[in-house]
Order: sequence, then C-alpha cells, then structure tokens
Amino acid sequence: MEDALARLKKGTLKLYALEKELPPEDAVRVRRTFVEEERDADLAALGAFTIGIDRVVRRNIENMIGTVQIPVGVAGPVQVNGEYARGEYYLPLATTEGALVASANRGASAITKAGGADVRVVRDGMTRAPVFAARDVVHAKEVADWATAHFADLAAAAETTTSRGTLLSVAPYVTGTSVFLRCAYDTKDAMGMNMATIATAEIADLVEAETGARLIALSGNMCVDKKPAAINLIEGRGKTVVAGVRLSDDLIQRVFKTDAATMVEVNYRKNLIGSARAGALGFNAHAANLVAAMYLACGQDPAHVVEGSSAITTVEATGDGVYVAVTLPAVQVGTVGGGTGIDTQAACLRLLGVAGGGEPEGTNARAFAELVGVGVLAGELSLLGALAAHHLARAHKELGRG
Amino acid sequence: MEDALARLKKGTLKLYALEKELPPEDAVRVRRTFVEEERDADLAALGAFTIGIDRVVRRNIENMIGTVQIPVGVAGPVQVNGEYARGEYYLPLATTEGALVASANRGASAITKAGGADVRVVRDGMTRAPVFAARDVVHAKEVADWATAHFADLAAAAETTTSRGTLLSVAPYVTGTSVFLRCAYDTKDAMGMNMATIATAEIADLVEAETGARLIALSGNMCVDKKPAAINLIEGRGKTVVAGVRLSDDLIQRVFKTDAATMVEVNYRKNLIGSARAGALGFNAHAANLVAAMYLACGQDPAHVVEGSSAITTVEATGDGVYVAVTLPAVQVGTVGGGTGIDTQAACLRLLGVAGGGEPEGTNARAFAELVGVGVLAGELSLLGALAAHHLARAHKELGRG
Amino acid sequence: MEDALARLKKGTLKLYALEKELPPEDAVRVRRTFVEEERDADLAALGAFTIGIDRVVRRNIENMIGTVQIPVGVAGPVQVNGEYARGEYYLPLATTEGALVASANRGASAITKAGGADVRVVRDGMTRAPVFAARDVVHAKEVADWATAHFADLAAAAETTTSRGTLLSVAPYVTGTSVFLRCAYDTKDAMGMNMATIATAEIADLVEAETGARLIALSGNMCVDKKPAAINLIEGRGKTVVAGVRLSDDLIQRVFKTDAATMVEVNYRKNLIGSARAGALGFNAHAANLVAAMYLACGQDPAHVVEGSSAITTVEATGDGVYVAVTLPAVQVGTVGGGTGIDTQAACLRLLGVAGGGEPEGTNARAFAELVGVGVLAGELSLLGALAAHHLARAHKELGRG
Amino acid sequence: MEDALARLKKGTLKLYALEKELPPEDAVRVRRTFVEEERDADLAALGAFTIGIDRVVRRNIENMIGTVQIPVGVAGPVQVNGEYARGEYYLPLATTEGALVASANRGASAITKAGGADVRVVRDGMTRAPVFAARDVVHAKEVADWATAHFADLAAAAETTTSRGTLLSVAPYVTGTSVFLRCAYDTKDAMGMNMATIATAEIADLVEAETGARLIALSGNMCVDKKPAAINLIEGRGKTVVAGVRLSDDLIQRVFKTDAATMVEVNYRKNLIGSARAGALGFNAHAANLVAAMYLACGQDPAHVVEGSSAITTVEATGDGVYVAVTLPAVQVGTVGGGTGIDTQAACLRLLGVAGGGEPEGTNARAFAELVGVGVLAGELSLLGALAAHHLARAHKELGRG
Repeated sequence: MEDALARLKKGTLKLYALEKELPPEDAVRVRRTFVEEERDADLAALGAFTIGIDRVVRRNIENMIGTVQIPVGVAGPVQVNGEYARGEYYLPLATTEGALVASANRGASAITKAGGADVRVVRDGMTRAPVFAARDVVHAKEVADWATAHFADLAAAAETTTSRGTLLSVAPYVTGTSVFLRCAYDTKDAMGMNMATIATAEIADLVEAETGARLIALSGNMCVDKKPAAINLIEGRGKTVVAGVRLSDDLIQRVFKTDAATMVEVNYRKNLIGSARAGALGFNAHAANLVAAMYLACGQDPAHVVEGSSAITTVEATGDGVYVAVTLPAVQVGTVGGGTGIDTQAACLRLLGVAGGGEPEGTNARAFAELVGVGVLAGELSLLGALAAHHLARAHKELGRG
Repeated sequence: MEDALARLKKGTLKLYALEKELPPEDAVRVRRTFVEEERDADLAALGAFTIGIDRVVRRNIENMIGTVQIPVGVAGPVQVNGEYARGEYYLPLATTEGALVASANRGASAITKAGGADVRVVRDGMTRAPVFAARDVVHAKEVADWATAHFADLAAAAETTTSRGTLLSVAPYVTGTSVFLRCAYDTKDAMGMNMATIATAEIADLVEAETGARLIALSGNMCVDKKPAAINLIEGRGKTVVAGVRLSDDLIQRVFKTDAATMVEVNYRKNLIGSARAGALGFNAHAANLVAAMYLACGQDPAHVVEGSSAITTVEATGDGVYVAVTLPAVQVGTVGGGTGIDTQAACLRLLGVAGGGEPEGTNARAFAELVGVGVLAGELSLLGALAAHHLARAHKELGRG
Repeated sequence: MEDALARLKKGTLKLYALEKELPPEDAVRVRRTFVEEERDADLAALGAFTIGIDRVVRRNIENMIGTVQIPVGVAGPVQVNGEYARGEYYLPLATTEGALVASANRGASAITKAGGADVRVVRDGMTRAPVFAARDVVHAKEVADWATAHFADLAAAAETTTSRGTLLSVAPYVTGTSVFLRCAYDTKDAMGMNMATIATAEIADLVEAETGARLIALSGNMCVDKKPAAINLIEGRGKTVVAGVRLSDDLIQRVFKTDAATMVEVNYRKNLIGSARAGALGFNAHAANLVAAMYLACGQDPAHVVEGSSAITTVEATGDGVYVAVTLPAVQVGTVGGGTGIDTQAACLRLLGVAGGGEPEGTNARAFAELVGVGVLAGELSLLGALAAHHLARAHKELGRG
Repeated sequence: MEDALARLKKGTLKLYALEKELPPEDAVRVRRTFVEEERDADLAALGAFTIGIDRVVRRNIENMIGTVQIPVGVAGPVQVNGEYARGEYYLPLATTEGALVASANRGASAITKAGGADVRVVRDGMTRAPVFAARDVVHAKEVADWATAHFADLAAAAETTTSRGTLLSVAPYVTGTSVFLRCAYDTKDAMGMNMATIATAEIADLVEAETGARLIALSGNMCVDKKPAAINLIEGRGKTVVAGVRLSDDLIQRVFKTDAATMVEVNYRKNLIGSARAGALGFNAHAANLVAAMYLACGQDPAHVVEGSSAITTVEATGDGVYVAVTLPAVQVGTVGGGTGIDTQAACLRLLGVAGGGEPEGTNARAFAELVGVGVLAGELSLLGALAAHHLARAHKELGRG
C-alpha cells in the first residue's frame, strides 16, 4: 500500500486503477489517504464504513474513498390499503432535515386512525426516447410512420436483450427534422433504466437500418430522465401512483388541531393557486422531502426525486371531513439492482418486506411504489395540517383580541 | 433497555420518547430492535454506524434506527477558475449509480486539460413567499401596494430574527384574492430556508396587522421550495451559478473521440429540441446526477436536487472547438447547518476546503455553489461527449459499410 | 322600428329579442341605434357592412350591431409541396400590423425560389376531455380502467351523434379523485369542437351510468381548448403540422442578406435559449402572427391562435445552407362550419381552393392546415432573416471600425 | 387599371408596387382582380368594404385585396367599478362563434345585478428583451452587471427615441454566454411594442459599445411576445389586470340555476386540477374567447390573445355565495396606434369611451384593460355557471331516479 501511494504521488499509478492492484478495502484506504494528503484534509470519518464493498466497487461507484452515513428514522406504523402493499408498515426515512420524520409520523398516525390509506398504481412503464435526425420533414414523417407500423419488429428487437422486460408502446414525436421515439417498457422489479436503454439501442439500430435516419442520442430528452418535464407529469414515467385518505372532522380536530375548511383553503391557495402562478410542474407541499427520504433509505436513485416532486395534492371537503389525495405521475423505483443490494439499503427494503424480486415478478416494485405514495400522503397531511392549525390559531387569537 | 423494549411492546412507551429515557445510542438500538421484532426483519446493518449521533438525534432526525451508508468517490483533480473557488479540487460524489464518478472524472480531466472551468455566482437570494387572503381584488391590490411602500419596515421586522440575514427584496404577486409576497434574503453561509422562514413570519405578522389580510400559509408555493417551477428557472432561488469551458478541437478528439459539430448537434437535438417538445423546465443531459451526488456527499438537502435539475446546458461552436456552459438558476446550498455537521459530510466539505462559515461570511457557500456548477459541467461534458462519440462511431461504421 | 327602439328604451323589449320581431338588417340597425344613443357614440361605421347576415345572426353571433372590417393582404405566390396542398398559392392574411404581409411575402418568395416548402400533417384528432368525480382513488382507478376496457362501447355511443366523426382514442388521466377522459376524434373538414363536445356528452352519460362517477364538466381542461398547455404541445390537438425548406447559401445571401451561420445562431439564442429560460411553451419568432392572420381571413376561431403559437422553429446548417422547419402541434381548423360560411371569409377559402367539404372528406381541412404551416414557415424565415441581417450588418460595421 | 393588370400578368409590375401607381382603392381592386384571375376564384365579397383605406394601406397592411367583415355584438350593460373605467358599459365583441355574446351577456347581467365588478391594473409595463452573445460566462456576468450599474444611462439612451415612453426597469438574465436584458417601459396609451423596440435598439447599441457583447436579436424571446411563457404569467407584460365580483346564493340561483358549492367544484376540478395535470399556463375556462372578441372589435393585435389566454380564474365560497375573480397577467392593449384608427374599430373604442389618447395620458389604455378584465370575468362566470347548472341538473335527475 505504501508503494501504491508513492506511485500515485509520482503519477505512475492512476487513481482509478487502484482496485486492479489491491483488495477493495485497501484500494479505498490508499485512495483516501492520497486525497487527504493532497488536500490536507482529515477524511477519516469517510473511511469508517461498515458495509461490504466488494460488489459496491464493481457496480455502484468508481474512485471510492469511503461512505457518508445518513441517519434513518421510521414513521409509523401506517395502515396501507394497496393492491400490492397491505397492512401496517414502518416507513424508513433517511434525512438530515430535523422534524421531517416527526412530521411524517404524525401523518402516518392520522392515516392509521382513519382506517388506512388507499393507494393504487394506475400506470406502469419505464421510458427511453432516442432522437434521430431525418433528412427533411417528409422523411421525418416516414420514420415516425415506419416505427408505428413496425411495432412488432421493434418489440422483437428490444426483447432480444432482456429475459424480463417487455416493450409496451412506442410513441413517435416529429419536431422539424428530429424524430423522437418514446419507448415504454414493463421492467418488473427493476427500476429499469438500464434495461430500457439496452433494449432501445436495438430499436435504434433497426430504425437506422430500415429508415436511413441517423441516431443522434439514445436519450433524446423526451424520456424524460431526471429533468422536470410536463410529459412525465401528464403521461407518467415508471409508476403513476395515487393515494388517498378520508379524514373525519373529529380526526382533523384531534390530530391536526384544525378543521376541514381551513385545510381545503390552505391547499387551494398554496398548492393550487400559488403553484399555478409560479409556473410550476408540482402542486404539492413537500412531496420531494418524503420521496427523497424513502429513496435514499431504500437504495433508489436520488436524482429521481426530480420526477417524484412533480406531484399533485388535492383536498376536498366531504361534508363531514376531507378527502386528501396525492398523485405521483412518475415514481421510478426498483427492488433489485442499483443501490438496493448495499447492506444498509437492503435492510430498509426488508423492513418494508419488499427486498429483491417479487412473486410474481414486479409485485415488490409496485408495492414499494405504493408505499412511497402513502409516505408522500403522510407528509402532505402533516404539513397542510400544521399550516392550517397555525392559520386557525392566528384566526382564533385575532378573534380573541377583537 | 430490556425494560424500554417491553414497554414499547406494551404500548406504554412511545417510540419517539426513547431519547428522553436513554442515551442516544441505546435509544436507537432499542428502537431498531423493536421494529426488527415487529416486522421480523434483520436491520443489523443499519445499526453499524460510526458517526457521532448526539447532535444528530437532536437536530437532524427523529425516531432514528441507524444510518444508511452511501459510497463516496472522487472526481478530479479539476481546475476551477471561480470568484470564490480557485485552484484544483477533488469533488466528492456520493452515489450508487455505477459509472457516474468515472464519467464526471473524465469531464473533470477535460476541464483541467483545457485550463480550467470559469464559474460565477450571478445572483444570490433565498426566498420564502407567504400567501395572504384579501377580502376582494381591490383589497388585494392594496395589500401588495402596502408591502411595496413599506419595504423598510418589513426589512426591519425580518431582521429582528437574525443577526446575519438581510432582506434583499419583496416581490408581490396578486392572483385573485390571494396575495403572495416573495421575500428574498442574503443568508450568508447557511442554505437559509430556516432563517428565511423565521424572518418571513415577522413580515407576515406585520402585513396581517397593518393590512387586514389573513395569512394562509407561510409558504405559498411561489417560493418555490422543492417543486419544479418556472419562477425559479427564471428568477433563481438560492444561488444562480453559471460555469463554462472552452475545448479545442484537439482536446475534443483526444478526450471524447468526437468533434465539435457532433457535440453541438447532440446538445441541440437532445437538450434543446427534445426538452422543448417535452414541456421541460430542464434543458440538460443529467445535471441532477451531479447535483444529487455532491449534495449527498456534503450534507445538503437532497430534495433540493429538484431545483438543481432545472439547468440549461449550451454548446456553441467557436471555430476551433466548442464553448460548453451550464446555467443553474437555483443552487440552494450552505456550509453550516442542516446535514453539514455530521462527521462524514463535514469531511467532504473539508475535502473541498469549504467547511463551516467563510471569511468573509458567505464565501464558503458561494465557493461550494461554484464547485457544484463545475461538477455539473464535468458531468454534462462527459455524457454529451459519450453520446457524440457513439453517434460519430456509428456514422463512421455506416460510411464504412457504404 | 321606431316602436322597437322606444320599447327598448322603456325596457319592455329586450335587446336580444329584436330578431324575433324584425328582419335581421332592421334588428341590427335598431340595436345599434339604441346603443349609440345610450352611450352617445357614433357607430355608423359598424353598420356599413356588406355581408349577408341572415345566417350570421342565427349561427355566428347574438346582439349584433354591425361588423368590423379587417384588411386582407396576400403573400405569394408560394410553392407548396404538401400531401394535400400542392402547387402555388396566394395566402390571404387579415391583419392591421403593418409590415406583416410584406414580411410573409418575402418568406414566401424565398420558399418558392428554393423549390417550395415540404409540409405534412403528422397527426390529426380533435379532443374533448370531460372531468368526473370519483368517490376515492380506488374508484378513480376503476373508472379509468372501465373506460379503457369499454372503448368500443364509448365509440358506439359517441358515433350515434354524428354521421361523420369517428372516435380515435380515449386516454384516461387519474388525478386524486378526478378522472379525465381525453377523447380524440377525426372530424373530417370541420374544426370539430362542437362535434367532439356533442359526441363526448354521450360518452359522459355512459360513464356516469356504468361507473357511478359524477360528471363535473364536459370540458375538464385536459382537452385543452384555448389555453396554453404542454399536453397540446406534446400530444397535439387538431392537426399537428410540420413544414420545412432547404435554403442554399446563395439564396440566403440574395434574399436575406445574411448567411447560414448567423441564421442558425439567431434561432439558437432567441428561439431556443431565450424561450427555454422564459419557461415558454413556444419556441418560435412570431408564429402567432401568421396563424392569427390566416385564421381571421379564413373564418377560423381566433382564440385558437393560442394553441397555434405553441410552435417550435428549428434551423440547421446543412453544409451548403440551412434547413429551416416549423412544427405546429395544434392547428385547429376547418373549412366548413364556424365563420367559414361568411361571405368574405368564404372568399378567402376559395382563394386557397379549400372552401367547403373536401373530396374525400377531410382533405380540405388538411390542405388548409398544411397552408397554415407554410405561412408560419414563411413568417419565421423572414423574421429570422431580418434579425440575422441586422446582426450581420452590425458585425460588418464593427469589423470595419476595428 | 387595365394596363396595370396587364403588366402584373406579364411580370413587369410587382404586386406590392401597385400603390405607387394607383390610388389605394384602384390598387386594391387591380390586385384583387389579378389574384382572382390567377386562382380562378370569386373574391368580390372582399372588395365590398366601406372603411377608408388611405391610411390603412400605408400603416396597417401591404398587398391589400380587400377586407373580411367580422360580426360585432354587444354584451351589457355591465357595471364596472374600476380605477379608470367606472359606470355601465356595453362591451363590443367581434366573433363568429355562436353563443359567445349571449354567454358574455348573461355574465354581464349577473355582474350588474351584483353591484358591479371590481377591477384593478396591478402592474403596467411593456417589455422587450434583446439577447447578446458574450465571449464566455465571465464576460456574460460582466455584461449583466454593467447593465444593472448603468440603468440611468440606459434610460437616457432609450428615452431619446420617445417623447412619451419611460424606461421602468432592466432585468438581466445570464444563460451560458447569452445575456438577456428585459427592458420594461411605461408606454402610456399605446400598446407600446414599437415604442419599446425602438427605444431598446438604443439600449442595445450602448451595451454593445460599452461591453463588447454582440447583439444577436433585438427580441431574444424573454420579452415574451406572442408565445405562451411562464415569465409573462409570473411577472406580467403590458398590464396585469385583476377583476372580481361577489355573487350571493340568491343571485347564483336566479341567474345561473346552480349553487355556490357546485361553482366552486367546477372551477376546482376543471380550471385548477385539469390545467395542472395538463401542464398548462392558463387556469381558466375560456378567457381567450373574450380577449379575442374584444381585441378584434377594438383594433388590438389578435396575436396577443396568446398572452391574454394565460389567465387564472378563482372561485371561493364566501358563506353566503361566491367570490369569483380573474387574473390576467398580460393584457397588451392600446387606444392609439395599430388597428385602433380604422373606422370600424375606432367606433368600438368610442362605444367604450376610450378612443384615442387619455387625459391624463395612459388612462384610456388602462380603462380599456380594465374593461377586458371585466369582459373575461363575465365570460368565466357564464361558462362556469352553465357547467355547474348542467352538473347540478344531472345530480337532481339522478337523485330523482334513485
């Protein structure tokens, strides 16, 4: 190891090449030591990890120097009445934002007292949309028409690359000379971006060969991955989840110290009118907080919080309380692959009973998506309730003053 | 501890109350054990953390059961020519997405070979926008006009709550009977949401008292926090960062195995045309990946990846190469508060030389924001280069066939 | 007539009831006189119309007092290489904006010199999207699933109301307890809003009867009619039209006094980067001007300029010039119904050879949509050319100074 | 005239040159005849106009062949309680969409019965945003900072071109190497696009000369003119107008045959939830219809219907009825210039008492903007009322069946 460090300093060994010479733990240690000395910074805390990293350095990261540790708390138990997730759950939340777990916990408590949250996956399909250049607009239309007419051929090509995924649809979008083919896949328990990308490469080859269009990029940004975009809000990406709960006037009063009309007004002025005027693609209070916390705990891709934040929260007076719902058009999650196999993240998936592949396939990922929906619902309930209570309290105080 | 566990099971002790009876480590252990037994799930990995948690359980999380560990790799060295960050840096990236660090590393290498990336903070201001209900539209205009006319009073009220923050501006938005006041603050080295919220509560009190408008919610969703929204893309939130680098034809060929025209075309068809047709608020390849990885490593709020993803990447031919730039309107970061004090995250900030408060105040947070800009630039360069090389390779192959 | 006027003043005759007592011309005259006297304003000019109004007062307007006259100019001849419109055309443009016709004319000239504009209708379907209220999210999913499973029944119901229209698709969107069913129709030569609305009422009845959902509004704003919306930009509404033309370096120089690189740069920085940062749903220079002028001339609904403005203009260097294209996702036009039968508007449709129903049905409306696409292309070429020439001129001037 | 026609056919006379040889009426007649013969189409109706065209052919149009006549009806009287428009008005509406005037009339009637509509202009400023190219991002920041620091110089330069307009603000937006300067002007009674463009040209010259940035286009699409864009929805363009009215339960029942709760629900599910899910920038029922009809009647630019459609309609229960409001962020209107001087359009402005320049300057344009706001409010009331009544009727029918 001393030798490796010396060679790094001399420049005769590349930082990324350490794993070729040393066992993972040693490679990580030498690299961290090198960076510490280069930058004169104490990085010991990063090295005090306890997870196994043999697979991690091969699959999850390069140039590893250690890990960050993110606290995990639980919210629950929360009663979930899903199609795939049913029963009581403790939701693991990884966060450093004080009060978030407490807030979710209060929402979870309200849900459970109310008999549980209904939740459904209303659509499911991971997308990848390559962009091709056509010669002119006439050619562009021909390319789009060809793809529509040859769906079966495209599906056959795509499915040579995967034993599990299936091509669900190919939607063409012609924009000038650019042709986008938005390909949607059922990727079972995998989040599915890799599967979709590899399968779409086959589709792209076939389109190029048969139409003469030039592939410009396997991802043409109509997928849309990790960018806020109306197409995902409208058409969904990954799983579209909707969760709702009915709260009685009494429950609203007991748990949130407010009333139905006030909750409706807060949601109306803040989540609907405020977001409308802001040109927003998200109409909610803080869906991203819950999505981020559950994704991090469970080994999901944190950049997918972007799409997760594009949620709509609705609150309706029912006569004897409110019905509160959240709609998340793009929940991109998996229970196999990605970060799901790391020791700590796998534990969180086990806590939810959704670790690994489901039986039948796809059911674990769908159950997890339902739980994300319920987590977001708990968070929305709690923050709307707090805002409403505050508002109500002020109103009371003012009345008292008057 | 046995006793506490028994009481939890009996329901005579609340899960969140453990820290009141036990030292943090014990409280976390008992809680984890309780949940393990309730759910019959092995959560030992979560418990094997090595960070100090005394402050964590008070400030960062409730109902803690352990931590997840997320691998950290480094990309660099990358030469940064910022106003606050200058010199060579190793960027810490926390991720479980294989190839991300390698990709950023390649981009960093190109930047350094090119003499470094220019980067600037072009705006700075953390926002909070309460929503008030007016009696009618005439009253709504009066409330807005009152706020405009009394900026000094609002600033004085706001600044009673903070020794550091200053109120920069208050922008009123009347929508029907709803009045939104978007208050922007200089929050120095803090990310500033808490500071802005507390200060804005004083503003809200004053507005209510003086105008008779009713405060509905301290956050009226025109802030906009953690939702994708055009107002942040346009006007910025937190720090607006722009980073750019000039690559010669030779460098493009050597590092990315492609050419200037192909990089321009990939960016044009994918990041501009594709995002336009998708109704996107982000015109980039994968800014969110880099933002997420740097935020996680450095103790930032991962839900702010939402705003970070709303970036615009531009690639222009220069005659002898390309100029590539990224514009991030909303980089919401701090080097004090939040998760920045946790042992492992603090180490990552030290690696960047920006841990804690800067001298003068605010310079560490701005330096960090510049580094995020450069990290995103490295990621964009690398992915665009890879797509372009792939495309170019295909083009060559086809020419060979022809 | 004197009597009627007196009764109007006394309030014993309603303004809208005049046509029940008097022939149309007299009714209009008396009403105008009444308003003139009430407001003490000379409105004689409004009364000097020359169109026949027997059908107009029954079909196109109520409470008529006269007409406004809008000047019509022609741009052309322009060579059109469409699927439905082929040959040379003079485009009628109704406008009061000086220079607009001249500008379009210059663009038309460039197109013709270049051998004509390619143009295609790549999608066609008029939409109407009722919104239903479900009991809860579970019910909402059931309603959506029922609609998907019963497409044939919905089509049968819809088509009882029309001999010409056919239901193409029904796309369900669940948002909390609200279920939107976006129904798309082939409406042949009619713009089709009325046809779509009437047919969708049948669908709504069936959905209510079979699912128990409550119809809230026949238009639930996911149609989307006359509001800017990403769903129309992405998925189209009415006809999606794409038009393009290849200009040589020589032609660019002769007609526009600029060069290919400058046209590309103007489009890039203005139409793409500028619109991106503005949070726009339109990426063009002034598509709305041409759409408005052609719609007004030809009896289309001017409020549909909203959707027409949501166009994308692309300019690509070809090595020996540029390829310029416009993509209009939502061209909502008809050649029968609406204002198409008014004498002056019918004349404009005759000028284009597309008045009345086409043979086969639908071909006149499609030909007209293609002509709108070419008109917009002409306008974009001309304005981009002018901006580029200006910019180039400045550049030359500066070089001269240097 | 025979001679001119012959020369047109031979190609020795250009179509646009006719006015140089012939009086306007003759030039228009010959041109129309030429086009008629070329296309074998009867265009006589276009020629039967009655407006004076001497100024029209110089200012409003080129290549004129006649006019289209668009029916005008009136809605009213409507009681308006504005800051600039006060009293009873008949609103002139030019449209060919049957039922539109009747619908507006019903809304106007409800407003008047309710004591009138409140309406205010809450912002006023016409914008133009040139785009400059900087050398790199560092230069881009310098350009933006220079503009901010030299506002007084920019204002002085701008105001050399106009005796009436004043520069209100210059907002810089840096995006990569592109710098946009959004300049806002008070343009008094003119709509102001021309004034703003001419004044901004001076600003652009100064910026180029002092900073070395290259002007790419005087309009860089952050203005934003005639494209749907969030920046206009958020920050306004032209006049931001808000109008509202309080309807009692009794009035709702008498005029609209529905009730407060149903109106609230229709607005909530359609205008808010539906538009949110559609990725819309307009949250209203049919604002564009009223904007288009008033703009056409009164000589405004119909392409500005685009921005007019980006309106937000709000409906709130008040306990004893509803408060309904419309917010139109971008009403771009004038009472001088453009099409306002044409005989028929001038008559419509006279009907409203706002023809020509106001005293003091600017008050006529603001009064007209207020009237547009009230017109839109009338339209929204009526359509929401109709949808609600229909829905209520169904509900009653169903209850009856049950």
